[in-house]
Amino acid sequence: MAPVDVPVALLGYGTVGAAVNRFLHENADNIERATGHRLRVVRALVRDLKKQRDFPAAPGVLTTDFAEIADDPEISLVAEVMGGLEPTNDYIMRLLRGGRPVVTANKQLLAQQGAELFAAAQEGGVQLRFEASVCAAIPVIKVLREALVVTNVHRILGIVNGTTNYILTQMELGAEYEEALADAKRQGYAEMDPTEDVSGADAAAKMAILATVAFGSRVTLDDVNFEGVERITSAHVSAAKQMDMVVRLVGRATLVEGGYDVRVSPALVDRAHPLASVEGAFNAVMLQGDAIREITLEGPGAGGIETASAVIADMVSIIGTKGTGFLHNDACWRKIDRLPAGELRSPFYLQISVDDRPGVLARVAERLAAHGISVARLVQSQIDGGATLHVISHEATYGAVETALAEISALPESREIAAAFPVISQRGISELGWA
Amino acid sequence: MAPVDVPVALLGYGTVGAAVNRFLHENADNIERATGHRLRVVRALVRDLKKQRDFPAAPGVLTTDFAEIADDPEISLVAEVMGGLEPTNDYIMRLLRGGRPVVTANKQLLAQQGAELFAAAQEGGVQLRFEASVCAAIPVIKVLREALVVTNVHRILGIVNGTTNYILTQMELGAEYEEALADAKRQGYAEMDPTEDVSGADAAAKMAILATVAFGSRVTLDDVNFEGVERITSAHVSAAKQMDMVVRLVGRATLVEGGYDVRVSPALVDRAHPLASVEGAFNAVMLQGDAIREITLEGPGAGGIETASAVIADMVSIIGTKGTGFLHNDACWRKIDRLPAGELRSPFYLQISVDDRPGVLARVAERLAAHGISVARLVQSQIDGGATLHVISHEATYGAVETALAEISALPESREIAAAFPVISQRGISELGWA
Repeated sequence: MAPVDVPVALLGYGTVGAAVNRFLHENADNIERATGHRLRVVRALVRDLKKQRDFPAAPGVLTTDFAEIADDPEISLVAEVMGGLEPTNDYIMRLLRGGRPVVTANKQLLAQQGAELFAAAQEGGVQLRFEASVCAAIPVIKVLREALVVTNVHRILGIVNGTTNYILTQMELGAEYEEALADAKRQGYAEMDPTEDVSGADAAAKMAILATVAFGSRVTLDDVNFEGVERITSAHVSAAKQMDMVVRLVGRATLVEGGYDVRVSPALVDRAHPLASVEGAFNAVMLQGDAIREITLEGPGAGGIETASAVIADMVSIIGTKGTGFLHNDACWRKIDRLPAGELRSPFYLQISVDDRPGVLARVAERLAAHGISVARLVQSQIDGGATLHVISHEATYGAVETALAEISALPESREIAAAFPVISQRGISELGWA
Repeated sequence: MAPVDVPVALLGYGTVGAAVNRFLHENADNIERATGHRLRVVRALVRDLKKQRDFPAAPGVLTTDFAEIADDPEISLVAEVMGGLEPTNDYIMRLLRGGRPVVTANKQLLAQQGAELFAAAQEGGVQLRFEASVCAAIPVIKVLREALVVTNVHRILGIVNGTTNYILTQMELGAEYEEALADAKRQGYAEMDPTEDVSGADAAAKMAILATVAFGSRVTLDDVNFEGVERITSAHVSAAKQMDMVVRLVGRATLVEGGYDVRVSPALVDRAHPLASVEGAFNAVMLQGDAIREITLEGPGAGGIETASAVIADMVSIIGTKGTGFLHNDACWRKIDRLPAGELRSPFYLQISVDDRPGVLARVAERLAAHGISVARLVQSQIDGGATLHVISHEATYGAVETALAEISALPESREIAAAFPVISQRGISELGWA
């Protein structure tokens, strides 16, 4: 059993780092009662010693020299809250190889360099925990790894990016995309450069991490097919509304015979589905597995104190499992192939704008049929001398839908690029439709 | 570090026990990868060795003699899945005092004898884990104790009984209470004697356990004020519907200045609230705390394999934290007083049926005002020469509402006992109302 006093270090002392230090101070008694240990920040790596900070560290804690952390044998574990790929990766690799457990909140690093990082942890015989890298304080990694140990989770559906969920819920209330994005920036939900969020790259990294843990096979950012919300228009949002659905940016990880598929894209979610009620900047993850049917976790997916709360939970869990062999290994123990990109099946909603001329519906229907896309519901509405076709299809492959849409968009009658959204519903497709 | 082979025993080998044995068999490799250990059921206590079972135990595993488990030093931990208060309590006490870690799924035992059980665990220097006692596979205990260690959770809202939630969602679809209950029995969601579920006693035991863990102070079944669904009528359900709310049996644990309050009662839940979308036999628990705002966990709250999944997660967590001091103590470290029964505040919906005579509204309004109950919305509807008053109040104490209602029910114009339901909404009360 480790001694009561546990000196720890931080890489980074921004909003999250300062909150970690503050929580460890304020909750030292709680933590000692739960774990038998008092965690104390003795070093924090920063770039600028003189910067003003939320919760100032005690004198002598801040340092600009990584060696003061790496070479101090007294430090029991290190939490990385500085972000970025380099030099962060180098620091973490050196700590792990040197036998120092690490907690990280760095999703891009994990999703891109996970294999190397876990190999270093194995080499050093220590844990690398990463709860805060996915959905901040929502403890989905702990639940997957520790609570669902006998449940083969084969499907994950997640709203794992708060910025885009905020934008989409604002659009539901009537805003155009650009307005909603500007509003998200004002509210602090979007960064000045929102690319990583609105492109889906942030959600893709999180889904890669979740799929890796759930499926036991490495899924990197490169293995995730992702698309963001930039092309969502108010026409899509209002069509969804008329069908009693909502547009959400949904991450979907699926394990089927023959491989896995992990993707992020806008989807139409039935109002009766638990993910449809996730509003504003909240996140939710639904885990489907053998023994549990499904478990959904919902909460704030970002924020400094929420992230700090998850970092501390990981620190406490490392101290609480030290020397037992528990989770001292990579979650990956098998090699599953990626399903070829177009092969996953889903029901779809298609929105197709065409000139209102005789024969055009036949030509569109012919293109759908040619690719095996079976129409469950079709509604045609008139707009500006043109027609918009709203189609809900039975299950079809992503590949077939993509090809059919490209062909339809190339028809001379096509007015704009046709859009396709997977439909997520727990009801039968035939129960969905135009109000 | 414990050896790879970990012999374990079960008290009980019914549906849950057999599922635990089966999962440990089928997932032995998964568990060894995650923990470094292989768990193996070597003994299971039963009453009848000859009974046919789902997943038969290996020869020699079943026994009718508790001493074969208690006296076998090879057995590393014991999972209690036999239920009941005695002799179960006696068995667990003896195991814990003898230094044997125990996992239990027994909510009534924990909610009634928790203090003694945890004292015995402390005496024996071992863990007592109880995830499966609350909401089966939904890992709310693990999340509270391990993930939210620096979040002072001060409020829990839960739908923690699947039977009553099934009944209420069936009533929403038009069934009367008796029909819905009969249907729940047919579907296997209600027992032949459904008293423990429909009276709220089952939910009350779960809320006592959750409150104990969240608040760090012992809350027993006796400390929970509970009321079931037996008096819910279709008039209540349809009034809720007209206000875009649903009737749910809600457990509510609150920590305020001056004490805690834990109660279970039917409540009106705003459709926009995450708990409103919990349908059928599903459960959900919303945890509100300092660092997390709120986290909601939703899933199946009962079932043999779901319960077995939680039991195994606890077994694995005990093995994975052995000898570290982690959670080797009772969650209770302080003594918080119970708030006097009537003092908790909430907005309410009141349904009052009266003869339609001049002056009656004034008399009802006068009784409300006399007890400081401020009306936010009032709608009067005519029924059979009488009138039903639908009132949404601003926050008032439970005590004031109870007294006012008793006085109103005693008015000569009163047609039936008036009903009051707390209203649960994240919107302002003034946004709620009659459609």
